[in-house]
Amino acid sequence: MEELSIISSLTDSLKKIPGIGTKSASRIAYEFLKMDKKKVLDLISSLNDICSNIETCPKCGCYLENHVCPICDDENRDQSILVIVSSYKDIFAFERMHFNGLYHIIDGVISPSKGITPSDLHLDKLLNRIKEKNFNEVILATSSTIEGETTAQYIATMLSSLNVKVSRLGYGLPMGAVLDYTDELTLSKAFINRTNLKK
Amino acid sequence: MEELSIISSLTDSLKKIPGIGTKSASRIAYEFLKMDKKKVLDLISSLNDICSNIETCPKCGCYLENHVCPICDDENRDQSILVIVSSYKDIFAFERMHFNGLYHIIDGVISPSKGITPSDLHLDKLLNRIKEKNFNEVILATSSTIEGETTAQYIATMLSSLNVKVSRLGYGLPMGAVLDYTDELTLSKAFINRTNLKK
Repeated sequence: MEELSIISSLTDSLKKIPGIGTKSASRIAYEFLKMDKKKVLDLISSLNDICSNIETCPKCGCYLENHVCPICDDENRDQSILVIVSSYKDIFAFERMHFNGLYHIIDGVISPSKGITPSDLHLDKLLNRIKEKNFNEVILATSSTIEGETTAQYIATMLSSLNVKVSRLGYGLPMGAVLDYTDELTLSKAFINRTNLKK
Repeated sequence: MEELSIISSLTDSLKKIPGIGTKSASRIAYEFLKMDKKKVLDLISSLNDICSNIETCPKCGCYLENHVCPICDDENRDQSILVIVSSYKDIFAFERMHFNGLYHIIDGVISPSKGITPSDLHLDKLLNRIKEKNFNEVILATSSTIEGETTAQYIATMLSSLNVKVSRLGYGLPMGAVLDYTDELTLSKAFINRTNLKK
Protein backbone atom coordinates (compact mmCIF):
# COMPACT_ATOMS: atom_id res chain seq x y z
CA MET A 1 0.00 0.00 0.00
CA GLU A 2 1.29 3.43 -0.97
CA GLU A 3 0.59 6.57 1.02
CA LEU A 4 -2.49 8.33 -0.38
CA SER A 5 -1.46 10.91 -3.02
CA ILE A 6 -3.67 13.48 -1.29
CA ILE A 7 -1.56 13.10 1.88
CA SER A 8 1.82 13.04 0.17
CA SER A 9 1.02 16.19 -1.80
CA LEU A 10 0.04 17.94 1.44
CA THR A 11 3.35 16.79 2.96
CA ASP A 12 5.21 18.14 -0.08
CA SER A 13 3.49 21.52 0.25
CA LEU A 14 4.34 21.71 3.95
CA LYS A 15 8.00 20.84 3.26
CA LYS A 16 8.29 24.07 1.24
CA ILE A 17 7.91 26.14 4.44
CA PRO A 18 11.44 27.15 5.51
CA GLY A 19 12.39 25.38 8.75
CA ILE A 20 9.95 22.48 8.25
CA GLY A 21 11.74 19.22 7.39
CA THR A 22 10.39 15.98 5.94
CA LYS A 23 9.54 14.42 9.33
CA SER A 24 7.76 17.52 10.64
CA ALA A 25 5.88 18.00 7.37
CA SER A 26 4.60 14.43 7.52
CA ARG A 27 3.65 14.77 11.19
CA ILE A 28 1.75 18.01 10.55
CA ALA A 29 -0.01 16.51 7.51
CA TYR A 30 -1.38 13.69 9.69
CA GLU A 31 -2.41 16.18 12.37
CA PHE A 32 -4.45 17.98 9.70
CA LEU A 33 -6.19 14.70 8.85
CA LYS A 34 -7.27 14.25 12.45
CA MET A 35 -8.13 17.91 13.09
CA ASP A 36 -11.56 19.40 13.27
CA LYS A 37 -12.39 20.49 9.68
CA LYS A 38 -13.53 23.91 10.96
CA LYS A 39 -10.00 24.65 12.20
CA VAL A 40 -8.45 23.64 8.87
CA LEU A 41 -10.94 25.84 7.00
CA ASP A 42 -10.02 28.77 9.29
CA LEU A 43 -6.36 28.23 8.41
CA ILE A 44 -7.18 28.10 4.69
CA SER A 45 -9.05 31.39 4.96
CA SER A 46 -6.14 33.02 6.86
CA LEU A 47 -3.69 31.80 4.21
CA ASN A 48 -5.93 33.16 1.47
CA ASP A 49 -5.97 36.54 3.25
CA ILE A 50 -2.17 36.56 3.38
CA CYS A 51 -1.99 35.77 -0.34
CA SER A 52 -4.42 38.40 -1.48
CA ASN A 53 -4.54 41.22 1.06
CA ILE A 54 -0.99 41.83 2.14
CA GLU A 55 1.26 44.57 0.76
CA THR A 56 4.47 46.16 1.95
CA CYS A 57 5.01 49.88 2.48
CA PRO A 58 7.08 51.31 -0.41
CA LYS A 59 8.83 53.64 2.07
CA CYS A 60 9.79 51.46 5.05
CA GLY A 61 9.04 47.87 4.00
CA CYS A 62 6.50 47.33 6.80
CA TYR A 63 3.40 45.20 6.05
CA LEU A 64 0.29 47.23 5.24
CA GLU A 65 -3.35 46.48 5.90
CA ASN A 66 -5.97 48.42 3.91
CA HIS A 67 -3.12 50.27 2.11
CA VAL A 68 -2.14 52.16 5.29
CA CYS A 69 1.33 51.94 6.86
CA PRO A 70 0.94 51.86 10.66
CA ILE A 71 4.33 53.58 10.99
CA CYS A 72 4.88 55.99 8.08
CA ASP A 73 1.26 57.17 8.01
CA ASP A 74 1.21 57.92 11.76
CA GLU A 75 2.00 61.64 12.11
CA ASN A 76 2.41 61.39 15.89
CA ARG A 77 5.67 59.48 15.51
CA ASP A 78 9.05 61.19 15.85
CA GLN A 79 10.18 61.82 12.25
CA SER A 80 13.80 62.54 13.22
CA ILE A 81 14.98 59.08 14.28
CA LEU A 82 15.25 56.11 11.93
CA VAL A 83 15.85 52.58 13.20
CA ILE A 84 17.14 50.07 10.65
CA VAL A 85 16.05 46.48 11.36
CA SER A 86 16.58 43.32 9.36
CA SER A 87 13.07 41.91 9.72
CA TYR A 88 9.51 43.06 10.26
CA LYS A 89 9.29 41.14 13.56
CA ASP A 90 12.16 43.17 15.05
CA ILE A 91 9.92 46.23 14.97
CA PHE A 92 7.83 44.74 17.79
CA ALA A 93 10.87 44.54 20.09
CA PHE A 94 11.19 48.34 19.72
CA GLU A 95 7.45 48.92 20.00
CA ARG A 96 7.38 46.99 23.29
CA MET A 97 10.02 49.48 24.52
CA HIS A 98 7.58 52.32 23.54
CA PHE A 99 9.99 53.62 20.90
CA ASN A 100 8.16 56.19 18.81
CA GLY A 101 10.42 56.90 15.82
CA LEU A 102 10.46 55.47 12.30
CA TYR A 103 11.77 52.19 10.93
CA HIS A 104 13.37 50.87 7.80
CA ILE A 105 13.28 47.13 7.12
CA ILE A 106 16.15 45.87 4.97
CA ASP A 107 14.65 42.33 4.99
CA GLY A 108 17.76 40.26 5.64
CA VAL A 109 21.41 40.49 6.51
CA ILE A 110 24.55 40.18 4.40
CA SER A 111 25.49 36.48 4.46
CA PRO A 112 28.03 35.12 1.98
CA SER A 113 27.26 31.56 3.13
CA LYS A 114 23.56 31.97 2.23
CA GLY A 115 24.41 33.94 -0.92
CA ILE A 116 22.87 37.18 0.38
CA THR A 117 24.88 40.15 -0.89
CA PRO A 118 24.36 43.88 -0.13
CA SER A 119 22.46 44.27 -3.43
CA ASP A 120 19.77 41.85 -2.18
CA LEU A 121 18.95 44.23 0.68
CA HIS A 122 17.93 47.15 -1.58
CA LEU A 123 20.24 49.49 0.29
CA ASP A 124 19.99 52.10 -2.50
CA LYS A 125 16.37 52.63 -1.40
CA LEU A 126 17.56 53.14 2.18
CA LEU A 127 20.29 55.55 1.05
CA ASN A 128 17.80 57.61 -0.98
CA ARG A 129 15.38 57.75 1.94
CA ILE A 130 18.07 59.02 4.32
CA LYS A 131 19.31 61.56 1.74
CA GLU A 132 15.78 62.91 1.16
CA LYS A 133 14.64 63.16 4.78
CA ASN A 134 16.44 65.14 7.44
CA PHE A 135 16.91 62.48 10.10
CA ASN A 136 18.87 63.53 13.19
CA GLU A 137 19.99 60.00 13.83
CA VAL A 138 20.04 56.61 12.12
CA ILE A 139 20.27 53.65 14.54
CA LEU A 140 21.60 50.37 13.16
CA ALA A 141 19.59 47.68 14.96
CA THR A 142 20.64 44.47 13.25
CA SER A 143 21.37 41.48 15.53
CA SER A 144 24.74 41.17 17.24
CA THR A 145 25.58 38.08 15.16
CA ILE A 146 28.46 38.00 12.67
CA GLU A 147 26.04 38.66 9.80
CA GLY A 148 24.22 41.42 11.69
CA GLU A 149 27.53 43.11 12.56
CA THR A 150 28.78 42.87 8.98
CA THR A 151 25.54 44.40 7.71
CA ALA A 152 25.68 47.23 10.28
CA GLN A 153 29.29 47.97 9.34
CA TYR A 154 28.44 47.94 5.63
CA ILE A 155 25.57 50.40 6.10
CA ALA A 156 27.65 52.62 8.41
CA THR A 157 30.34 52.85 5.71
CA MET A 158 27.69 53.60 3.08
CA LEU A 159 26.31 56.47 5.22
CA SER A 160 29.68 57.84 6.34
CA SER A 161 29.71 60.74 3.85
CA LEU A 162 26.20 61.93 4.80
CA ASN A 163 25.56 64.60 7.41
CA VAL A 164 23.63 62.35 9.80
CA LYS A 165 24.48 60.75 13.13
CA VAL A 166 24.80 56.96 12.68
CA SER A 167 24.75 54.79 15.81
CA ARG A 168 24.73 51.11 16.73
CA LEU A 169 22.87 49.46 19.63
CA GLY A 170 25.07 49.16 22.76
CA TYR A 171 26.76 45.94 23.78
CA GLY A 172 27.02 44.52 27.27
CA LEU A 173 25.47 42.17 29.76
CA PRO A 174 21.82 41.32 29.07
CA MET A 175 19.58 42.00 32.09
CA GLY A 176 19.40 39.00 34.41
CA ALA A 177 22.72 37.61 33.18
CA VAL A 178 24.70 35.30 35.45
CA LEU A 179 28.33 36.40 35.18
CA ASP A 180 29.64 32.85 35.47
CA TYR A 181 27.77 31.89 32.28
CA THR A 182 28.61 35.03 30.30
CA ASP A 183 30.81 34.46 27.27
CA GLU A 184 34.12 36.33 27.13
CA LEU A 185 33.18 38.46 24.11
CA THR A 186 30.05 39.81 25.82
CA LEU A 187 31.98 40.39 29.04
CA SER A 188 34.80 42.25 27.28
CA LYS A 189 32.17 44.44 25.53
CA ALA A 190 30.49 45.07 28.91
CA PHE A 191 33.89 45.93 30.40
CA ILE A 192 34.67 48.43 27.64
CA ASN A 193 31.20 49.98 27.90
CA ARG A 194 31.24 50.21 31.71
CA THR A 195 29.50 53.30 33.10
CA ASN A 196 30.71 55.58 35.87
CA LEU A 197 28.30 55.47 38.82
CA LYS A 198 29.99 58.27 40.81
CA LYS A 199 29.46 61.37 38.69
CA MET B 1 1.81 49.57 16.61
CA GLU B 2 -0.14 46.34 16.90
CA GLU B 3 0.60 43.26 14.84
CA LEU B 4 -1.61 43.21 11.73
CA SER B 5 -4.86 41.33 12.45
CA ILE B 6 -4.33 39.34 9.24
CA ILE B 7 -1.05 38.00 10.65
CA SER B 8 -2.30 37.36 14.17
CA SER B 9 -5.31 35.42 12.90
CA LEU B 10 -2.97 33.27 10.77
CA THR B 11 -0.82 32.68 13.88
CA ASP B 12 -3.95 31.73 15.84
CA SER B 13 -5.00 29.23 13.16
CA LEU B 14 -1.52 27.68 13.11
CA LYS B 15 -1.50 27.37 16.91
CA LYS B 16 -4.47 25.00 16.66
CA ILE B 17 -2.26 22.36 15.02
CA PRO B 18 -1.26 19.91 17.79
CA GLY B 19 2.46 20.18 18.51
CA ILE B 20 2.77 23.76 17.20
CA GLY B 21 3.28 26.27 20.02
CA THR B 22 2.93 30.05 20.03
CA LYS B 23 6.54 30.73 19.00
CA SER B 24 6.51 28.21 16.13
CA ALA B 25 3.11 29.41 14.92
CA SER B 26 4.37 32.99 14.77
CA ARG B 27 7.58 31.93 13.01
CA ILE B 28 5.66 29.91 10.41
CA ALA B 29 3.18 32.78 9.87
CA TYR B 30 6.06 35.12 8.98
CA GLU B 31 7.58 32.47 6.72
CA PHE B 32 4.26 32.39 4.83
CA LEU B 33 4.44 36.17 4.39
CA LYS B 34 7.84 35.90 2.76
CA MET B 35 7.10 32.77 0.74
CA ASP B 36 6.41 32.58 -2.96
CA LYS B 37 2.60 32.97 -3.31
CA LYS B 38 2.48 29.94 -5.66
CA LYS B 39 3.72 27.67 -2.85
CA VAL B 40 1.13 29.02 -0.41
CA LEU B 41 -1.63 28.49 -2.98
CA ASP B 42 -0.44 24.88 -3.48
CA LEU B 43 -0.71 24.33 0.26
CA ILE B 44 -4.20 25.85 0.32
CA SER B 45 -5.29 23.51 -2.45
CA SER B 46 -3.83 20.47 -0.62
CA LEU B 47 -5.62 21.48 2.58
CA ASN B 48 -8.86 21.89 0.67
CA ASP B 49 -8.42 18.37 -0.73
CA ILE B 50 -7.94 16.98 2.76
CA CYS B 51 -11.09 18.74 3.96
CA SER B 52 -13.33 17.63 1.15
CA ASN B 53 -11.99 14.38 -0.29
CA ILE B 54 -10.86 12.29 2.63
CA GLU B 55 -12.93 9.54 4.24
CA THR B 56 -12.10 6.65 6.53
CA CYS B 57 -12.92 3.00 5.87
CA PRO B 58 -15.92 1.95 8.00
CA LYS B 59 -14.31 -1.49 8.47
CA CYS B 60 -10.66 -0.82 9.38
CA GLY B 61 -10.41 2.96 9.90
CA CYS B 62 -7.84 3.43 7.10
CA TYR B 63 -8.06 6.58 4.95
CA LEU B 64 -9.84 6.10 1.63
CA GLU B 65 -9.31 7.80 -1.69
CA ASN B 66 -12.12 7.57 -4.28
CA HIS B 67 -14.18 5.53 -1.78
CA VAL B 68 -11.83 2.51 -2.04
CA CYS B 69 -9.96 1.04 0.94
CA PRO B 70 -6.45 0.04 -0.19
CA ILE B 71 -6.45 -2.74 2.43
CA CYS B 72 -9.97 -4.14 2.87
CA ASP B 73 -10.82 -3.94 -0.83
CA ASP B 74 -7.63 -5.78 -1.85
CA GLU B 75 -8.59 -9.46 -2.23
CA ASN B 76 -4.96 -10.57 -2.56
CA ARG B 77 -4.31 -9.87 1.11
CA ASP B 78 -4.30 -12.61 3.74
CA GLN B 79 -7.75 -12.43 5.36
CA SER B 80 -6.76 -14.60 8.34
CA ILE B 81 -4.41 -12.23 10.20
CA LEU B 82 -5.49 -8.96 11.77
CA VAL B 83 -2.96 -6.43 13.06
CA ILE B 84 -4.29 -3.83 15.52
CA VAL B 85 -2.45 -0.50 15.36
CA SER B 86 -3.08 2.75 17.15
CA SER B 87 -2.56 5.08 14.19
CA TYR B 88 -2.81 5.09 10.42
CA LYS B 89 0.92 5.81 10.07
CA ASP B 90 1.83 2.58 11.88
CA ILE B 91 0.43 0.65 8.92
CA PHE B 92 3.38 1.79 6.81
CA ALA B 93 5.87 0.22 9.23
CA PHE B 94 4.18 -3.14 8.55
CA GLU B 95 3.86 -2.48 4.82
CA ARG B 96 7.62 -1.78 4.63
CA MET B 97 8.09 -5.27 6.14
CA HIS B 98 5.92 -6.66 3.26
CA PHE B 99 3.23 -7.81 5.70
CA ASN B 100 0.18 -8.82 3.70
CA GLY B 101 -2.63 -9.27 6.23
CA LEU B 102 -5.37 -6.90 7.39
CA TYR B 103 -5.31 -3.99 9.84
CA HIS B 104 -7.58 -2.37 12.35
CA ILE B 105 -6.85 1.20 13.45
CA ILE B 106 -8.11 2.00 16.93
CA ASP B 107 -6.97 5.63 16.53
CA GLY B 108 -5.33 6.24 19.89
CA VAL B 109 -4.26 4.52 23.09
CA ILE B 110 -5.80 4.41 26.55
CA SER B 111 -4.31 7.35 28.45
CA PRO B 112 -5.87 8.47 31.75
CA SER B 113 -3.58 11.54 31.80
CA LYS B 114 -4.93 12.70 28.41
CA GLY B 115 -8.47 11.65 29.31
CA ILE B 116 -8.59 8.89 26.66
CA THR B 117 -10.66 5.98 27.96
CA PRO B 118 -11.37 2.61 26.26
CA SER B 119 -14.74 3.94 25.06
CA ASP B 120 -12.95 6.60 22.97
CA LEU B 121 -11.25 3.88 20.93
CA HIS B 122 -14.50 2.34 19.61
CA LEU B 123 -13.40 -1.10 20.73
CA ASP B 124 -16.95 -2.46 20.33
CA LYS B 125 -16.48 -2.03 16.56
CA LEU B 126 -13.22 -4.02 16.79
CA LEU B 127 -14.90 -6.73 18.89
CA ASN B 128 -17.77 -7.08 16.41
CA ARG B 129 -15.35 -7.31 13.49
CA ILE B 130 -13.35 -10.09 15.17
CA LYS B 131 -16.54 -11.95 16.14
CA GLU B 132 -17.91 -11.78 12.58
CA LYS B 133 -14.74 -12.76 10.70
CA ASN B 134 -12.83 -15.96 11.29
CA PHE B 135 -9.35 -14.59 11.91
CA ASN B 136 -6.69 -17.15 12.83
CA GLU B 137 -4.70 -14.59 14.74
CA VAL B 138 -5.04 -11.07 16.08
CA ILE B 139 -1.71 -9.28 16.63
CA LEU B 140 -1.66 -6.39 19.09
CA ALA B 141 0.79 -3.90 17.59
CA THR B 142 0.47 -0.86 19.83
CA SER B 143 3.73 0.84 20.91
CA SER B 144 5.75 -0.56 23.79
CA THR B 145 5.03 2.54 25.87
CA ILE B 146 3.01 2.43 29.10
CA GLU B 147 -0.11 3.57 27.25
CA GLY B 148 0.47 1.13 24.38
CA GLU B 149 0.98 -1.76 26.83
CA THR B 150 -2.15 -0.85 28.79
CA THR B 151 -4.18 -0.71 25.59
CA ALA B 152 -2.81 -4.08 24.41
CA GLN B 153 -3.62 -5.66 27.79
CA TYR B 154 -7.11 -4.17 27.74
CA ILE B 155 -7.85 -5.55 24.26
CA ALA B 156 -6.32 -8.94 25.12
CA THR B 157 -8.66 -9.21 28.12
CA MET B 158 -11.62 -8.14 25.97
CA LEU B 159 -10.82 -10.89 23.43
CA SER B 160 -9.97 -13.61 25.97
CA SER B 161 -13.30 -15.40 25.71
CA LEU B 162 -13.21 -15.58 21.89
CA ASN B 163 -11.80 -18.55 20.02
CA VAL B 164 -8.95 -16.67 18.32
CA LYS B 165 -5.19 -16.56 18.89
CA VAL B 166 -4.20 -13.18 20.33
CA SER B 167 -0.52 -12.20 20.26
CA ARG B 168 1.67 -9.22 21.09
CA LEU B 169 4.78 -8.04 19.22
CA GLY B 170 7.97 -9.47 20.72
CA TYR B 171 10.25 -7.49 23.01
CA GLY B 172 14.04 -7.40 22.93
CA LEU B 173 17.05 -5.56 21.59
CA PRO B 174 16.34 -3.39 18.56
CA MET B 175 18.68 -4.21 15.66
CA GLY B 176 21.90 -2.23 15.84
CA ALA B 177 21.59 -1.68 19.58
CA VAL B 178 24.71 -0.98 21.61
CA LEU B 179 24.45 -3.08 24.78
CA ASP B 180 26.10 -0.44 26.91
CA TYR B 181 23.32 2.04 26.07
CA THR B 182 20.42 -0.42 26.39
CA ASP B 183 18.03 0.31 29.26
CA GLU B 184 17.56 -2.40 31.88
CA LEU B 185 13.89 -3.05 31.04
CA THR B 186 14.69 -3.76 27.38
CA LEU B 187 17.66 -5.91 28.36
CA SER B 188 15.63 -7.94 30.86
CA LYS B 189 12.96 -8.49 28.16
CA ALA B 190 15.70 -9.55 25.72
CA PHE B 191 17.11 -11.90 28.37
CA ILE B 192 13.72 -13.55 28.98
CA ASN B 193 13.06 -13.83 25.22
CA ARG B 194 16.52 -15.23 24.44
CA THR B 195 16.51 -17.84 21.68
CA ASN B 196 18.36 -21.13 21.60
CA LEU B 197 20.89 -21.17 18.75
CA LYS B 198 21.84 -24.85 19.15
CA LYS B 199 18.67 -26.74 18.28
